[in-house]
Amino acid sequence: MRLLKVDSLDEAREKIIRAAVAIKPEKTDRTLQNAFGMILAEDLRASESIPAFRKSTVDGYAVVAKDTSGASETIPAFLQCIGEVEMGKAATTPIGSGQCVYVPTGGMLPEGANAMVMVEHSEPFGGGQVAIYDSVSPGRSVIEIGDDVMAGATYMTKGKRLRAQEIGVLASMGVVDVPVFKPWRVTILSTGDELIPVDQTLMPGEIRDSNSYTAAAQCEKYGLEVVTKLILPDDEEAIRNAILTAKGNSDLLMISGGSSQGKKDMTAVLLDELSTPGVFTHGIAVKPGKPTILGIDEVSKTLMIGLPGHPVAAMVIFELLVGWLWQTMTGSSRPLTIPATMESNVAGGSGRSMCLLLQLSGGSEGWVATPILGNSGLMSTLTHADGYTMLGINQEGLNSGETVQVTLL
Amino acid sequence: MRLLKVDSLDEAREKIIRAAVAIKPEKTDRTLQNAFGMILAEDLRASESIPAFRKSTVDGYAVVAKDTSGASETIPAFLQCIGEVEMGKAATTPIGSGQCVYVPTGGMLPEGANAMVMVEHSEPFGGGQVAIYDSVSPGRSVIEIGDDVMAGATYMTKGKRLRAQEIGVLASMGVVDVPVFKPWRVTILSTGDELIPVDQTLMPGEIRDSNSYTAAAQCEKYGLEVVTKLILPDDEEAIRNAILTAKGNSDLLMISGGSSQGKKDMTAVLLDELSTPGVFTHGIAVKPGKPTILGIDEVSKTLMIGLPGHPVAAMVIFELLVGWLWQTMTGSSRPLTIPATMESNVAGGSGRSMCLLLQLSGGSEGWVATPILGNSGLMSTLTHADGYTMLGINQEGLNSGETVQVTLL
Repeated sequence: MRLLKVDSLDEAREKIIRAAVAIKPEKTDRTLQNAFGMILAEDLRASESIPAFRKSTVDGYAVVAKDTSGASETIPAFLQCIGEVEMGKAATTPIGSGQCVYVPTGGMLPEGANAMVMVEHSEPFGGGQVAIYDSVSPGRSVIEIGDDVMAGATYMTKGKRLRAQEIGVLASMGVVDVPVFKPWRVTILSTGDELIPVDQTLMPGEIRDSNSYTAAAQCEKYGLEVVTKLILPDDEEAIRNAILTAKGNSDLLMISGGSSQGKKDMTAVLLDELSTPGVFTHGIAVKPGKPTILGIDEVSKTLMIGLPGHPVAAMVIFELLVGWLWQTMTGSSRPLTIPATMESNVAGGSGRSMCLLLQLSGGSEGWVATPILGNSGLMSTLTHADGYTMLGINQEGLNSGETVQVTLL
Repeated sequence: MRLLKVDSLDEAREKIIRAAVAIKPEKTDRTLQNAFGMILAEDLRASESIPAFRKSTVDGYAVVAKDTSGASETIPAFLQCIGEVEMGKAATTPIGSGQCVYVPTGGMLPEGANAMVMVEHSEPFGGGQVAIYDSVSPGRSVIEIGDDVMAGATYMTKGKRLRAQEIGVLASMGVVDVPVFKPWRVTILSTGDELIPVDQTLMPGEIRDSNSYTAAAQCEKYGLEVVTKLILPDDEEAIRNAILTAKGNSDLLMISGGSSQGKKDMTAVLLDELSTPGVFTHGIAVKPGKPTILGIDEVSKTLMIGLPGHPVAAMVIFELLVGWLWQTMTGSSRPLTIPATMESNVAGGSGRSMCLLLQLSGGSEGWVATPILGNSGLMSTLTHADGYTMLGINQEGLNSGETVQVTLL
């Protein structure tokens, strides 16, 4: 580890992508009940057509379309009804010209029939005769085999995030075990002599550990699995042991804190010492988030990330690197951005990329973005942030009235 | 139940809001670890200030600002260093004029100090003397008590959906048990002789139950709790028993299917018979989703919803009524909409509100919305939908180039 210059965000991303080959997300099966929010790990092809039979979209009579030619309210066509199709049952009796069969909505059309007449446009007569008051063309009110999904077709592609509708489609295709990307196992360490657990009373000089909670919630948001979450004092031996444990059971180690100069060095030195080839980024030209450390242990296959100690910076770096990396490695799409008009001028990061937190207001007439400035140590600013926009490393700033793309938080 | 006309979406919403008084979401406590995504059920006031002590944002020396007046790279001020503050410990020794104390980033300022000088702008001399090369004004590099949150202030309001940043703020405030709205307990029934479980092989005329999976995933999305999820044949006794069970253990009963005329009536009649005062809406002027049934049993406090059998319609009605109702009753904010430009003309719902599914493309230059038309029975259309926009009941349609507001699905 001899890193004299900070990386740009793009450089850090290039390096982390290369390093993350060691923790390439694997494929695993999840039951359909537990697949919501996961990322599909392979393309899915239909083993059968949906629907697998010709299906009526109305309650009425399955007919041969040409038998109804010219039929109207005043001059009906008369057909012989030779039966009724039950829901969920095969239509076993074919019909010929001059015949019809009653079929409920969702029911199967019999052989020979090629259209449906709605029951509202019919009237039963004696002797099984039905008067048809409508002239229907072939295919009317019929869903053909494969209209929804054709057998052999790819109906869902790798990288798809499984929302409610995808879960429904998988159910209709009979996919009981869904091939999804196995969530990274994550260790979250918060270090600092000043940190106390959430349920303890503060003494002067102490603060409660919040970064590990934020990071754990971000893991939940991205579908990652937190295996360990610990508060540690600024004690080399304790941190060393926790890193060693993480190497044994985690794909990703995040360690936050060590925000003072001496402590930061200890974290970086330990991460480097305990990994091969080691730390590859020490400092990123992004605001907030400069004191970020990135390393990889290829032996244990553990990606190591030193997050800044400041809450806002830690959260931003998680989004820009960890969340971004998971989306990139799984090929899942980025969340859609919202265009908004800047309410005021904002200066750029002067040689650094800048993650600008924004509060959105307005709505139907277009969103207005109010920058949330202030110290990155202030937690309360975070709760007002609807999202963020990125300013490039050489971008001078944003002007009032300018349109930005906002990624929701 | 004598309902001769369908309700508009607004009428149905007014009625369901009135009925849902019976299932007003209750307050419950969740541990902080399990509160992500839940809705805060009360305003939270700070019992202490954050930070609770004056805190340094840099590594350096706590000073009396006026002692540094005029100091520069060439003409330093000399101060007597009388100690060092440890992280997480109280600064016990006050300083006076001419004195300073070393404080690490995040450490506590001692009494008497009112600014920080960065270590980079200092140099230790013999005899505990420190040369200060910077002139700092009062408050420089110091976070004052309560700068983040002041004791007594409301720092988070009822109805807030708890994202990662809110979880972090709650941690820093020491909120171990979070008051959130207790998720509605939901029973999901799919009815139809044609329905088979997901893991079974299709016979002609059969389809797999998908609506219950979609609805269960939508419940997960909104944080509702599914207590029962069942497939039932079109059998009056079976449906009656399932409704009775749901009255005993659920706040919300959703029953989908019964899409043919006779079956629809059976569902509505049963829901009405088994509830007091009973069904109040039978049919909504919304496309898709007309065959929707709404009822309330005030005795068991169970809201009853008959969802359409068609997958797209069922999903849309869940969003427009169930999701909408949960957001309204908990006072949580609606998701932010995305403005997009219509790619083509779309005809209106002619006397019905219309939920138009849209696929979005483009991005940085603005989103373009392509309408997803086609039969509401087609599942595959759903996976291409990024979101939807609503057309009013009297809206003639949308023109190509028109801007719409898209709610993401």
